[in-house]
Amino acid sequence: MYINKPASYTDYYELTMAQGYFLSGYHKKQAGFDYFFRKIPFKGGYVIYAGLNELIETIQNLSFSEEEIEYLRKEGFREEFLEYLNKFKFKGNIYSVKEGEIVFPTEPILRVEGNLLETQLIETLLLNILNFQSLIATKAARIKLAAGEDSVVLDFGLRRSQGLGGIHATRAAMIGGFDGTSNVYSAQRFNVPAGGTMAHSWVQSFDSEMDAFQTYAKYYPDDTTLLVDTYDTLGFGVPNAIKVAKELESKGHKLKAIRLDSGDLAYFSKKSRDMLDDAGLNYVKIAASNQLDERVIHSLKTQNAPIDIFGVGTRLVTGHTSPALDGVYKLNSIDGTPKLKISENIEKITLPGNKKIYRYCNNDGSFYGDAVLFDHEELIERMHHPTFPAKKSELTSRSFEDLLKPVITDGKVVMDIPEVHEIASYAKNRLEKLQPEFKRLENPHIYKVGISTKLMEKRDVLLKLFKS
Amino acid sequence: MYINKPASYTDYYELTMAQGYFLSGYHKKQAGFDYFFRKIPFKGGYVIYAGLNELIETIQNLSFSEEEIEYLRKEGFREEFLEYLNKFKFKGNIYSVKEGEIVFPTEPILRVEGNLLETQLIETLLLNILNFQSLIATKAARIKLAAGEDSVVLDFGLRRSQGLGGIHATRAAMIGGFDGTSNVYSAQRFNVPAGGTMAHSWVQSFDSEMDAFQTYAKYYPDDTTLLVDTYDTLGFGVPNAIKVAKELESKGHKLKAIRLDSGDLAYFSKKSRDMLDDAGLNYVKIAASNQLDERVIHSLKTQNAPIDIFGVGTRLVTGHTSPALDGVYKLNSIDGTPKLKISENIEKITLPGNKKIYRYCNNDGSFYGDAVLFDHEELIERMHHPTFPAKKSELTSRSFEDLLKPVITDGKVVMDIPEVHEIASYAKNRLEKLQPEFKRLENPHIYKVGISTKLMEKRDVLLKLFKS
Repeated sequence: MYINKPASYTDYYELTMAQGYFLSGYHKKQAGFDYFFRKIPFKGGYVIYAGLNELIETIQNLSFSEEEIEYLRKEGFREEFLEYLNKFKFKGNIYSVKEGEIVFPTEPILRVEGNLLETQLIETLLLNILNFQSLIATKAARIKLAAGEDSVVLDFGLRRSQGLGGIHATRAAMIGGFDGTSNVYSAQRFNVPAGGTMAHSWVQSFDSEMDAFQTYAKYYPDDTTLLVDTYDTLGFGVPNAIKVAKELESKGHKLKAIRLDSGDLAYFSKKSRDMLDDAGLNYVKIAASNQLDERVIHSLKTQNAPIDIFGVGTRLVTGHTSPALDGVYKLNSIDGTPKLKISENIEKITLPGNKKIYRYCNNDGSFYGDAVLFDHEELIERMHHPTFPAKKSELTSRSFEDLLKPVITDGKVVMDIPEVHEIASYAKNRLEKLQPEFKRLENPHIYKVGISTKLMEKRDVLLKLFKS
Repeated sequence: MYINKPASYTDYYELTMAQGYFLSGYHKKQAGFDYFFRKIPFKGGYVIYAGLNELIETIQNLSFSEEEIEYLRKEGFREEFLEYLNKFKFKGNIYSVKEGEIVFPTEPILRVEGNLLETQLIETLLLNILNFQSLIATKAARIKLAAGEDSVVLDFGLRRSQGLGGIHATRAAMIGGFDGTSNVYSAQRFNVPAGGTMAHSWVQSFDSEMDAFQTYAKYYPDDTTLLVDTYDTLGFGVPNAIKVAKELESKGHKLKAIRLDSGDLAYFSKKSRDMLDDAGLNYVKIAASNQLDERVIHSLKTQNAPIDIFGVGTRLVTGHTSPALDGVYKLNSIDGTPKLKISENIEKITLPGNKKIYRYCNNDGSFYGDAVLFDHEELIERMHHPTFPAKKSELTSRSFEDLLKPVITDGKVVMDIPEVHEIASYAKNRLEKLQPEFKRLENPHIYKVGISTKLMEKRDVLLKLFKS
């Protein structure tokens, strides 16, 4: 379970609105909501969608405990409404793209149908789960792409993660392509690999660095990474590590790696590599950590820094530079009538009605662009830029996929729940179908997301109704 | 309890080191660790320390479950160590400044003493709890200071908080000076005020905005905030709100507020205020939200935007611009011998030995500066800049407070656990003793933190040992 009281992990207004709908009879109306985001974080070209498992497991089991009902009673909520909440179960439908999918702004990644009360009530919980995990999966994918397939990237972020956000930061990092984590809790819970060796305090605790290294190697002869920067990296650290490696060799073991955690990582990794290689230890890997992110790693790679393993902490788990995905949950229809929100900001105008996403492909199988169309449309010939309709793309000759699939029907989960490593594998496959221009760290090409002619026309008619 | 398996909410290396200490007999050595941070987030002048309650409650109850032991068994940990973990309890001592205290870089805000194994094992959990809550309490204090005592600031961040980080983001926001939250879960758990009224979807769900407003006001006649920007703020929203306010007046009620959530908030708040006042509704307050933070609020205040209530979300709960406090936990001694970490970065060199903090005051009671000194020192005459010792301050004529107090002794909590509102009240009192220059949003004055002559000399002796 995501949290012990999921029904309370919500904004207060979801409950005042729910009571208002209940008292006015509006809770019997059917509603549709879309989850989508407006802006790609990290000035990037794509988002990896994550969090769906937690969302559907939580919604399927969503109910109000006696303690929560009592709290609301004290807050002044009415008895007839509390009785309703006491029996509340989500019985609606949810459609979603697959967890691990590559997604883009404007498109309804997830769609909820049901009565107005139940569809409204899950808003905050849904946004809390999906926004954060999608953010971190995206950050992780960027970091893994910068490091390259030949490098290992490890999540070291728990100490700087945003409190209990660390639980799912690790899950999302693994979905985005990380190879392992230091987070023991999440490794157990999500069945992903955990690892780690020593801190500076280990080295300081012994009378000498050499003592510290030898003691560790004694107990972990096949799994030792020596932290070499506690006192003087090239003066003591690496020479001591080389001695320990030789001692391990003499007993039939191999030192796994050394780790650099301060100083100029390009310089120290090159010097360390030379020293290790000169000692015949070219199998000993070099791990590096210290405020890494995709840009620092990219820079290290372009300098040919011989780093095999990147430990990434703070800037991974907090989504450094963009600490939130701006995903929103917006009403699209009431009792089948499409609804629109206008707002004072053009980019906040919504798309009305029940919609789906078609992903069009190029001949080589790579992704060409996505169209958002009404759920009742079958084939469309072209799509239009959402806010600049003169810009359009012809689609007739292209193959496409229908991305939204049912995940909850009448309140019951109707999909198989994949393991984290399966989701990660799906994300990796999908990323391979995204052309390199969209994956560039700086100024990526903008992926085409358009809307169908009918959707555009419907939106514009509704807009005019309010402007007149 | 902070998390269901706190012993696992840790970095894997804490466990490999623990086993190494156990197997080598080093777990019987006595160790001292300091918690401190190096850099103030948000380019600010101070940090509000938060998270202590969760930390001490969790440490007091820290133990390994059978499931966790079984996981470690499968990971290859040894039986004799697992037996030790099975009976593990933290039996050391913790000293800390009060939760809600104003703190600064370099100073040991919290100190842990005990055997090397137990003091090491709590590192990650301690950092996870304290770093995040201190970050958000600090952000909240900055926002509240920008808004001013005459304005209300509310936490609206749950939907954008970093997953379950939202639980404690709200707690920390309240400590930092927020007046309330939308987060129902945290309001229940931490006994703080929650509130909220309507989303755009409420307005869209009805046939007209007027219907939506009237229906809400019908059920919440004394607690209605009308969201006025769904279609056209000045064209429909505010005029409709005025009609509803008049209807409420005729029934003996009062509209509480209108809320603006898009567009230019300075412009719309002024226009709305004029329209409300012209209608004789000067008691109706104006609430505003939409990507607010301390800088935006400061700008709105300097423009005299008549906003009474600020709803702050994403940028509060994620610590936007600095999403992590860089707090660390460093070994200071083994069996009474002071220990030092040197590192390749000067700012990462630690302060050896068991230390405490004296806070010196000016004659008016405001804070002058803090000295870090050995625990066994009583009175000191001067303090030195930590890295530039020629810069020093004379202290003899000043009164001071000893900030570190015992919070856990021999594994038992020895302090009264304050309520969140009491911590908030303490933080507020302490902030009042910090002169305005340190609280400036831009380029604040740097608060003096120095080290005692003896501490400086000891560090420099230890440094020379390694340089020779």
